[in-house]
Amino acid sequence: MERYDLAIVGSGPAGLSAALNAKIRNKKFIIFGSKDLSNKIMKAPKINNYLGFYGMNGAEIKEKFAEHIDKMGIQITEERVNNIYAMGDYFTLMVNDKMYEATAVILATGMEYTKPLKGELELLGKGVGYCATCDAPLYKGKTVSIVGYNKEAEEEANYVSELAGKVYYIPMYKDEYEVRDNIEVVNKKPLEIVGDNKVSSLKLDGLDLETDGVFVLKDSISPGQLVPGLEIVDGHINVDREMKSNIPGCFAAGDCVGKPYQYIKSAGEGNIAALSAVRYIDILKNK
Amino acid sequence: MERYDLAIVGSGPAGLSAALNAKIRNKKFIIFGSKDLSNKIMKAPKINNYLGFYGMNGAEIKEKFAEHIDKMGIQITEERVNNIYAMGDYFTLMVNDKMYEATAVILATGMEYTKPLKGELELLGKGVGYCATCDAPLYKGKTVSIVGYNKEAEEEANYVSELAGKVYYIPMYKDEYEVRDNIEVVNKKPLEIVGDNKVSSLKLDGLDLETDGVFVLKDSISPGQLVPGLEIVDGHINVDREMKSNIPGCFAAGDCVGKPYQYIKSAGEGNIAALSAVRYIDILKNK
Repeated sequence: MERYDLAIVGSGPAGLSAALNAKIRNKKFIIFGSKDLSNKIMKAPKINNYLGFYGMNGAEIKEKFAEHIDKMGIQITEERVNNIYAMGDYFTLMVNDKMYEATAVILATGMEYTKPLKGELELLGKGVGYCATCDAPLYKGKTVSIVGYNKEAEEEANYVSELAGKVYYIPMYKDEYEVRDNIEVVNKKPLEIVGDNKVSSLKLDGLDLETDGVFVLKDSISPGQLVPGLEIVDGHINVDREMKSNIPGCFAAGDCVGKPYQYIKSAGEGNIAALSAVRYIDILKNK
Repeated sequence: MERYDLAIVGSGPAGLSAALNAKIRNKKFIIFGSKDLSNKIMKAPKINNYLGFYGMNGAEIKEKFAEHIDKMGIQITEERVNNIYAMGDYFTLMVNDKMYEATAVILATGMEYTKPLKGELELLGKGVGYCATCDAPLYKGKTVSIVGYNKEAEEEANYVSELAGKVYYIPMYKDEYEVRDNIEVVNKKPLEIVGDNKVSSLKLDGLDLETDGVFVLKDSISPGQLVPGLEIVDGHINVDREMKSNIPGCFAAGDCVGKPYQYIKSAGEGNIAALSAVRYIDILKNK
């Protein structure tokens, strides 16, 4: 498998700023995120404390960011990273049905991730999964419930429905749901995933669904869930002033490392994280 | 004396970014620096890792910064801060012949300060001074040597020459020197300020000048000299991730707190320092 020098997770200001520096420093890198860059930016009203831009709103600043990375030839990989495992001198990233390897990782995931459902963490890998397309074959002919946090989850539900016996789709957003006819959309709030060492049912508000598996398809997963062993303090990744986490080779920047939640702060930290990662990569290479 | 909530020392990216936030948060603040913003920026070649700007050089980015603070109504006070004293719940800033008070201070002085001359620190206040206009009256009829690091020092030399008996001007830059006829320009490198508990002479390369006083007029003074008691580690101000120094109410940001020396990193840290200072000020006010 080809190995990247660096994998950047997140395409908000921290991730983008890190990518600029990885590019300038000639590292082989991949950045995972969204071509919309960041939900938070898109929705932001006028921002006046990003030095150099005055009187612009989030969408306008986002355009500047997009133009910048575009001119530098940086492409964003629109895939969701489900897990990152520290393997010693490299990391394995589980990305839907694929795997990637990278010498160093920068987490720039933001803080907009969803709280886990009751029972979700306890039953993860025991019927609960984050990647429907990866694990669908395990549920051939069985009953699967999909809790979808965004429209992209509909595609995954459609794919699962080709294999599973029965699919429930529980949308966590309001929209027209474009799912196949054999999928039952259930518009009720999920309360708990129930099971004794293996998923048996999904408890919704006013309804219990018997189910063999539950896929929770979120925009992003909290860093603590994403990277086993990562030190979290007060809900944020614990980093030092070089943006190093407790795991060697794993750096972090932006909202996910702490307040203030501000674009310029995130961009500044992305710069530091990238240069720290470059140093880490170069030292490993020269060993 | 009117007291500011916040005094910001330095007008590079860290200081400007801090000023934006002080303004937005309605603090009464003053920012000391240069209308050119930063020597370092002006001289910078193409910068491609300030997220949002692509293909601009330092002078062009400086224009963007200047436009931004101008539109926000932020004025830079072009005076040199010579000393900052922590007084408990406020700071006194000695600024040439004036004094200012502020509840909190942000140091954003950069790293472009000059090494002290041999003997300079030992004889500071014993014939060595940093503010010619403040201390000139002490040297009525006496001999004064002025080591000037920039053109502004010429004005101070001219002023001193109205009072002193004899003025030597030792320029540390190349230019036309616009000093009065009664000032003797000596184009030799200063090596040491000599004196036994009081200045007696200034040793130049190949010449000793008998002198009663020496003014060293630099662009900026190192933070450790500027703020007595400030903790310096490896040549940088020691701060935590909230940009707090070891002195309560004294924050720092930008190159002076450590590498990488990058604009976006400095701007990000200026943001953090300002918001930390705002919190500090608000807590003091509500006591």
